[in-house]
Amino acid sequence: MGAVKKAVVLLSGGLDSATALFWAKSEGYHTHCIGFDYGQRHRKEMSSAMKVARVAMSSFEVVPIRLPWGGSSLLRRSGPLRTSRSGLPSTYVPARNTIFLSFALSCADAVGAEAVVIGANAVDYSGYPDCRPAYLKAMEKAAVLGTRRGARGGKLRILSPLVRLTKAQIVRLGTGLGVPYRLTWSCYEGGRRPCGVCDSCIFRAKGFKDAGLKDPLLD
Amino acid sequence: MGAVKKAVVLLSGGLDSATALFWAKSEGYHTHCIGFDYGQRHRKEMSSAMKVARVAMSSFEVVPIRLPWGGSSLLRRSGPLRTSRSGLPSTYVPARNTIFLSFALSCADAVGAEAVVIGANAVDYSGYPDCRPAYLKAMEKAAVLGTRRGARGGKLRILSPLVRLTKAQIVRLGTGLGVPYRLTWSCYEGGRRPCGVCDSCIFRAKGFKDAGLKDPLLD
Repeated sequence: MGAVKKAVVLLSGGLDSATALFWAKSEGYHTHCIGFDYGQRHRKEMSSAMKVARVAMSSFEVVPIRLPWGGSSLLRRSGPLRTSRSGLPSTYVPARNTIFLSFALSCADAVGAEAVVIGANAVDYSGYPDCRPAYLKAMEKAAVLGTRRGARGGKLRILSPLVRLTKAQIVRLGTGLGVPYRLTWSCYEGGRRPCGVCDSCIFRAKGFKDAGLKDPLLD
Repeated sequence: MGAVKKAVVLLSGGLDSATALFWAKSEGYHTHCIGFDYGQRHRKEMSSAMKVARVAMSSFEVVPIRLPWGGSSLLRRSGPLRTSRSGLPSTYVPARNTIFLSFALSCADAVGAEAVVIGANAVDYSGYPDCRPAYLKAMEKAAVLGTRRGARGGKLRILSPLVRLTKAQIVRLGTGLGVPYRLTWSCYEGGRRPCGVCDSCIFRAKGFKDAGLKDPLLD
């Protein structure tokens, strides 16, 4: 596997990470996807992620993690999702991307991957601090310093191809790359159809509308 | 709890993290300790950590994590521990401190702690890249950028009080602070008595010897 370009992709089953996976494929990466079962309200995400990974011809595994200290409405069984506290939505999970990236970096260091791919977006997003370019750059620096691969002078990048795109640009990019959006799931609730009112549904709907495309999930 | 200084402490049950905990106490922090069950060879570590936390009057919880990709001799049931590959000991767990710190930062962000304390040491150590000061500094920057607390302008430090001390200096510091070293466990194996030959045992023995003190665990 010397000449093969490997990347570990964080895959949530949503629109952004699915697009990031197909982007990585189009860049020539052989990919291994990781999803997390961290007590989020529904597990529909992970079944969507599995289906997306299959279409992308990518291996996929779910890593269970536990955040006993909670700190997010997404981790509670019920109750309102949109109540804002201190300027951040209640759906913020403390340091979630730092945890997700740390597992992905561990995996990358173990399998010899040169990149970790994350679908973070800082344009049409909920304002989570751990989606911003400056944060991702700082994590990349820590990754290089804190891994065997990096310490030996090997390349180890954190790639966030969507970070500066609007949702409409993401939808257009993904449509061109053949992302099976009908298999993705963005809604914070796990019902049979998207709720249409959570932040995630609203950003998704806006993306398809502004791109002049129809969301195949709503067919 | 407005005026209380809070810190989340990474506690492994070993000599270094126990000393770091007592250091944090001496600095006036109210502490919550986190340990990890990540499939290491023995669970003696966590029972030591619990006892140390009790003496320190600190809350403590164990977070289970799974690293399905392995990549370390510490995660295997048996086999040699000291075989070196590519200049790093086989006991290196890929990106372990990045994972540990990410959970600690998540907890700190959830409970409103201003510091995360880690007993990392870069003098008498096994050469793990994620123990070096430059790495810890980079993680601190990512922590500030990637958390609610940091994004709101709050203080969030990663403190590594032992990072530039020799093992002898750590033992002297801890002895002065009343660390119950008889309750700590450093050996990579989980036997009734320390094996005396693993890296961790050797560094510990050297520390007590150079400090002119007797290791109470060997009484």
